[in-house]
Amino acid sequence: MRIDNLQYANWSEKIFRQMRAGEVDAVHVTIAYHENFRETVLNFEQWNRWFELYPDLITKGLWASDIDRARAEGKTAIFFGFQNPSPIEDDIGLVEIVHSLGARFMQLTYNNQSLLATGCYEAEDTGITRMGRQVIKEMNRVGLVVDMSHSADRSTIEAAEISERPIVITHANPHDWHPALRNKRDDVIRAVTEAGGMMGFSLYPHHLKGGSDCTLTDFCEAVARTAERYGTDRIGIGSDLCQDQPDSVVEWMRVGRWSKEIDYGEGSAAAPGFPPQPGWFRDNRDFGNIEDGLRATGMSDADVAGIMGGNWYRFYAGNFSPKP
Amino acid sequence: MRIDNLQYANWSEKIFRQMRAGEVDAVHVTIAYHENFRETVLNFEQWNRWFELYPDLITKGLWASDIDRARAEGKTAIFFGFQNPSPIEDDIGLVEIVHSLGARFMQLTYNNQSLLATGCYEAEDTGITRMGRQVIKEMNRVGLVVDMSHSADRSTIEAAEISERPIVITHANPHDWHPALRNKRDDVIRAVTEAGGMMGFSLYPHHLKGGSDCTLTDFCEAVARTAERYGTDRIGIGSDLCQDQPDSVVEWMRVGRWSKEIDYGEGSAAAPGFPPQPGWFRDNRDFGNIEDGLRATGMSDADVAGIMGGNWYRFYAGNFSPKP
Repeated sequence: MRIDNLQYANWSEKIFRQMRAGEVDAVHVTIAYHENFRETVLNFEQWNRWFELYPDLITKGLWASDIDRARAEGKTAIFFGFQNPSPIEDDIGLVEIVHSLGARFMQLTYNNQSLLATGCYEAEDTGITRMGRQVIKEMNRVGLVVDMSHSADRSTIEAAEISERPIVITHANPHDWHPALRNKRDDVIRAVTEAGGMMGFSLYPHHLKGGSDCTLTDFCEAVARTAERYGTDRIGIGSDLCQDQPDSVVEWMRVGRWSKEIDYGEGSAAAPGFPPQPGWFRDNRDFGNIEDGLRATGMSDADVAGIMGGNWYRFYAGNFSPKP
Repeated sequence: MRIDNLQYANWSEKIFRQMRAGEVDAVHVTIAYHENFRETVLNFEQWNRWFELYPDLITKGLWASDIDRARAEGKTAIFFGFQNPSPIEDDIGLVEIVHSLGARFMQLTYNNQSLLATGCYEAEDTGITRMGRQVIKEMNRVGLVVDMSHSADRSTIEAAEISERPIVITHANPHDWHPALRNKRDDVIRAVTEAGGMMGFSLYPHHLKGGSDCTLTDFCEAVARTAERYGTDRIGIGSDLCQDQPDSVVEWMRVGRWSKEIDYGEGSAAAPGFPPQPGWFRDNRDFGNIEDGLRATGMSDADVAGIMGGNWYRFYAGNFSPKP
């Protein structure tokens, strides 16, 4: 089973066919960065249209069992998530509404301070806000998973403590391996994984040691060492693949409507756009390379199967339903 | 089994307890008259809150099987509907979105001309509009039932013809019995029922012969004669109970935001408010009176059971799921 727990591509029939070619059974796709509720609904509508147009390639994913159905039918199940809480605006009632529409992951912040927590680019991290505590409780109740990929450290550790259900880092790598601002320090990964949560390894070049030149062996060794350290069942893939996106989209991610000045985030004025993917992971067709690379590290077949998809499957099965 | 296929009460724990006292297994409740999409979402949110607050009395209804679950658990299943297409605004993509949120019935018009069809108070009825044809097709696809209770005759007959799935009149009575503007002429009822649709008998006094003074016997005889004429499986109850509502609410129904002048609808300047219910149907506790009254007409137990709920149950089972 292969599950990629984060992509934000410029979706097309070509990409959906590549998912099938790469035998990807499920993908968690981002459908909101800075969109408000109504704009996010338009993004759900767009996906409904794609499900109608490409019924042989993709199918809506709401529960882990939809992955079994997708596999039986030879399709990829698409699960939805937000990288920012902007879709719920200032209305806690929207948490259950977006879950009803299919949202399964929501970041409490995207780089900046939000109504709920502090983002990883702020100078000061004041942790989870008053509204943040209420929203985490509501997300726990309905089965919307807290994602802290773009959050600051204290906020992440507090979220892991406050949340009564496991939280995740859908897409990031260990800071010890590659000290990018977005990569996660040991105490952060430990707080998330010890509370039953997971981390998805990112293949976004800014998160990789050596960037676009990172080798498959280096990447897979980092995965293997991280699995040894935090548990082989605590690690998956969250590639952060942004295939076929124009550079204007990375600018939307970074500045949305919150600034009139450009913020280059993980890029720079000299390299403002999307960096090229490493040759061994161009797109969805290349998940077999990662699987082969993980086996070459000496990991057991069972551990490789868990990291490639089994671990996320188990996580989905336990965390998308309302609290009993 | 008892199903009331239309109510718009001023909801409270008292009313939910009366539903249980009246052994009402399911109620289709109106959650939008003139609300736009975002306002309708607030109404879904309010119901989510009631489901959380009164889990022993009510439960969210999405499918006919939820009625079986509700019966087993001693609760009333609440199904949602709109009396106007205002919640989908001018956006056909919202049809699937509101279905995902739980909407199961939508009137194409509420008294006035809408983007989709003509309402029963307009001077001219031009039938189903261009957008109306597209929206009926989309409603058929996703499993959102076309309701023409407040529509004009030609629009209703055209909707029955255009729709590939049965349509309904959730709450109205035969014009032959009581010639109110909102009651339905023979050719309209025939078009709906011959296409597999249903009509729910209203207990709103303006729709009753004799108004608030209508007798139980008169009402039940009208049901029995209508069942004989159009088929006993084509008739149910749609009480239009507006319990505990202040008169300001009937004004909202009638004029929303579309007029600065008051329109009295079925009322008048002398009697602008809600008329009193007949003594034999005050509220949800009185469904037993109707059941007894129907038996007293000489109808078979099976026919009475169908009209009290079995017919709507069968209709729900066939028409709420996406088209295969």
